[in-house]
Amino acid sequence: MSALLDRLASPRPDLCFYGLAPPKQSTPPERVQAIVAAQKERVRALSPDALVVYDLQDESSRQPDPRPFPFLPTLPPDLYAHHLMGDLALPKIVYRSVAGADRPGFEGWCAETATAGEPRFSVLVGAPTARGVSSGGVTLDDAYGLVRRHAPSLVLGAIAIAERHARRGDEHERMLAKAGAGCRFFVTQAVYDASSSKSLLSDYARAARARGERPLPVVLTFSPCGSPRTLALLKWLGIAVPRWLENELLDARDTLETSVRLAEAVAADVLAFAHEREIPVGVNVESVSIRKEEIEAATALFTGLRARLGR
Amino acid sequence: MSALLDRLASPRPDLCFYGLAPPKQSTPPERVQAIVAAQKERVRALSPDALVVYDLQDESSRQPDPRPFPFLPTLPPDLYAHHLMGDLALPKIVYRSVAGADRPGFEGWCAETATAGEPRFSVLVGAPTARGVSSGGVTLDDAYGLVRRHAPSLVLGAIAIAERHARRGDEHERMLAKAGAGCRFFVTQAVYDASSSKSLLSDYARAARARGERPLPVVLTFSPCGSPRTLALLKWLGIAVPRWLENELLDARDTLETSVRLAEAVAADVLAFAHEREIPVGVNVESVSIRKEEIEAATALFTGLRARLGR
Repeated sequence: MSALLDRLASPRPDLCFYGLAPPKQSTPPERVQAIVAAQKERVRALSPDALVVYDLQDESSRQPDPRPFPFLPTLPPDLYAHHLMGDLALPKIVYRSVAGADRPGFEGWCAETATAGEPRFSVLVGAPTARGVSSGGVTLDDAYGLVRRHAPSLVLGAIAIAERHARRGDEHERMLAKAGAGCRFFVTQAVYDASSSKSLLSDYARAARARGERPLPVVLTFSPCGSPRTLALLKWLGIAVPRWLENELLDARDTLETSVRLAEAVAADVLAFAHEREIPVGVNVESVSIRKEEIEAATALFTGLRARLGR
Repeated sequence: MSALLDRLASPRPDLCFYGLAPPKQSTPPERVQAIVAAQKERVRALSPDALVVYDLQDESSRQPDPRPFPFLPTLPPDLYAHHLMGDLALPKIVYRSVAGADRPGFEGWCAETATAGEPRFSVLVGAPTARGVSSGGVTLDDAYGLVRRHAPSLVLGAIAIAERHARRGDEHERMLAKAGAGCRFFVTQAVYDASSSKSLLSDYARAARARGERPLPVVLTFSPCGSPRTLALLKWLGIAVPRWLENELLDARDTLETSVRLAEAVAADVLAFAHEREIPVGVNVESVSIRKEEIEAATALFTGLRARLGR
């Protein structure tokens, strides 16, 4: 755990995360056991700086179009990370959506987190839209306040969204506010567009330095895309995929292999930019599919990106 | 002239153009002579495939914000290209804005063009906004029709705007329509964003090939940017400058030198993309400033890009 804390504080962290979603709630128990065993083995072999565990949300409030894949709820990310994967000796960074929680429920979670034997890491996620906060629910700002009061040892990360920056131009200010609220690092959505990610890094690092603050590490997420349907889901989720890259994937003989090659090229561009400007970064390879080839592609991408970071 | 025609028809044209604006109308005649002499010498030394001569427009109808530099009308591009620079033995590609012209005026220009001793090259430009066409004026479609009727030997190019494609997603269809109307090549606005240019090239080449047509050469314009004020003008003109690149220019110790380095990197990205996909392209280096350092930067950029094209 302290190795991750040291790395988060380093001027050149070059973090390497690997991200998973828990199995679906509907998965039969013996199948869950098998998935957990396989994932443990794979993650142990990759030995990332941390395992990121997502809290998948429906996100249908985001927009009227039908979701390209049906949403199926997963096992609770905390249960998955700290119990099912509990004996995997790696820091787990657990996503937690605060939008659906009520205040007592969130305070209970804080209390539980505070009494864990070792420091815990979490990325709190707000509602995908303003309408997504239930009445009596917890906003992201509320949640940061409750963590400071009830779980001060919890190491917080936050999400940073280049797409929102391209639209509104103020994501770097949200990042400064999140840093002010106690967050220690950022994780992006899956990156397919180098330019908007470079713009976010540039605006954020400039603004932090203008305030005399050191920019926090920004961990860039990359994810293979194995099919036109996955591509449709990415776009539905609001991830910016440039037209040219979309065309490359649609025209590719091997979509998955092409997506890994393109992700490596986009990563090379953004990482070189960040290193040249001494902006602390890292990579997170997201493997949310359960298809064998997609998992292998994510493994290959992780290994390639770690090598690129010289680690 | 026929060398340029051959190159336009080649599957890998890798065109190298150099672009200038005529001197301002208010320039004293003896100063015009000096400028013409200096430009002739410079262009002769560079020996581009063609000299592009712009038809600068006010473009204030484009938007309500004040123009960062005042608009000063120039000498007529035709006069400049075919008379003042007449003895420069290079094809001249003369821009002509059709928005302000009336029909007899445009027909007269077609007739004059048709009786020139050698084939002439022109890029017709429509109104910057729909409101910009005067009543009784000529639209771009009218103009293409009049050229076919009155000046069929005129070699037409057209502008292609990646920014419009990013906004509306249909610029590739306009390009197909322009090709159908007789245009033989495209020239872009100044490119500072690789991704949107790659998207336009990709969508255009795919759509042309889907119709069984060979994509026409797309000549990508690059231009040094020597100051924050020039940067403001580019943005005012509707040219997309990614935030990160804007920050680089604003923070640079030497804005001009940095802009040349960044233009070379953007060009390298887009040209490699086009070559890999066998999309015919070229470069056009725009030198519209009269400052000595900016002219030298444009010369350096031209030489660098030509070398990159292996020419």
